[in-house]
Amino acid sequence: MSQQPRAILFDVFGTVVDWRGSLIADLTDWGGRRGVAADWAGVVDAWRGAYAPSLDEVRHGRQPWTVLDDLHRASLERLLPRFGITGLDEADLAHLTDLWRTLRPWPDSVAGLTRLRENRIVAALSNGNVALLVAMARHNGLPWDMVFGADIYRHYKPDPETYLGACALLRLTPAEVMLAAAHPSDLAAAQACGLRTALILRPLEFGPGHPPAEPGGRWDYVAGDIVDLAAQVA
Amino acid sequence: MSQQPRAILFDVFGTVVDWRGSLIADLTDWGGRRGVAADWAGVVDAWRGAYAPSLDEVRHGRQPWTVLDDLHRASLERLLPRFGITGLDEADLAHLTDLWRTLRPWPDSVAGLTRLRENRIVAALSNGNVALLVAMARHNGLPWDMVFGADIYRHYKPDPETYLGACALLRLTPAEVMLAAAHPSDLAAAQACGLRTALILRPLEFGPGHPPAEPGGRWDYVAGDIVDLAAQVA
Repeated sequence: MSQQPRAILFDVFGTVVDWRGSLIADLTDWGGRRGVAADWAGVVDAWRGAYAPSLDEVRHGRQPWTVLDDLHRASLERLLPRFGITGLDEADLAHLTDLWRTLRPWPDSVAGLTRLRENRIVAALSNGNVALLVAMARHNGLPWDMVFGADIYRHYKPDPETYLGACALLRLTPAEVMLAAAHPSDLAAAQACGLRTALILRPLEFGPGHPPAEPGGRWDYVAGDIVDLAAQVA
Repeated sequence: MSQQPRAILFDVFGTVVDWRGSLIADLTDWGGRRGVAADWAGVVDAWRGAYAPSLDEVRHGRQPWTVLDDLHRASLERLLPRFGITGLDEADLAHLTDLWRTLRPWPDSVAGLTRLRENRIVAALSNGNVALLVAMARHNGLPWDMVFGADIYRHYKPDPETYLGACALLRLTPAEVMLAAAHPSDLAAAQACGLRTALILRPLEFGPGHPPAEPGGRWDYVAGDIVDLAAQVA
């Protein structure tokens, strides 16, 4: 590549943090303390399964703008009875929804972001809202130069307003910016907007035995993790 | 105060960074290297003097939305001939405009922000644009959890959209948020929106012998600097 990107935008859920492992551990812990037994892995997979459909309701205008915190909460309330969990009060539901704000990073994330940030802007570009992402960054020490939450644009990825909106706020051309993500669909949308792309392989995102789809596409970088991306971009 | 603020938003120019001292030093240095002699303090005071009127053109709809980087550039081009400086090329003008991106913090700023951030969200709320503020934070190690540039809302302070926009993105009520600023007019506008207020005294902002206006108003805190504010908020 002739010139390195001046900014790298990172997808967060799955790319930087391990949502599945964190939520299963935290729900299991909460259930143990509260005496609530359930198929927590099933709850987590159903919760994440509701993610894309709930974003699509907003993206296609069937629901007014709603931040991810509130979509998570609504999905949770819908799915809990299916897993035999009832009678939770407001404090319980708020606590469980906020577990998304304290998801833990993959082991390489903080070191890789820190190294990449030495020579260029490193920012979050997520469907999470600003408050969620700021809380998560504080909890984990994620060294963002900027947090591009979806509520800044009131658009969800893969809408082009998100990728191009971040470039515009950074006053960089799309060609000067790279998206790093574990999800080919996210990268393809960014590439269509003119951004560079880096695929971060996260084979355990959906749990052992559930490898992600084939990485397809022509990405500028394919990296085993964020430390590896930092070594490649140098 | 019954409860401490959950987030503190900081005005930047004058409150966190010493725009006047930095610009005079940097212009003097640049002039020395380029063999350009001028009344640099006069240039800086005229440049800053153009700030509020240029914001007002945008705020009152007489000019379409324009980010501060571009307002700075336009003001500079207008005022240089008055100081006998002509013939600068594009690279010179871009370099001088970008000096606003590397303004240095007051001696207490990084330590004070770092300490405040231990227990609550600390963010920039500035009329600077995101790209300018991110560059400045990288240059100085300003430990922002979030950078609320004016181009997120396309409004300039003291428009209420700025103060209330930051609260909304943080999902906090105005009463849970405090603005810290060296300028009573900024604080008064935030207070009218329901935010708490902290006046940071910066007697040298406009240079020795030009003390700021009386601090007037009833602020929740009055602090000698940001380290002092951190000690008071605890």
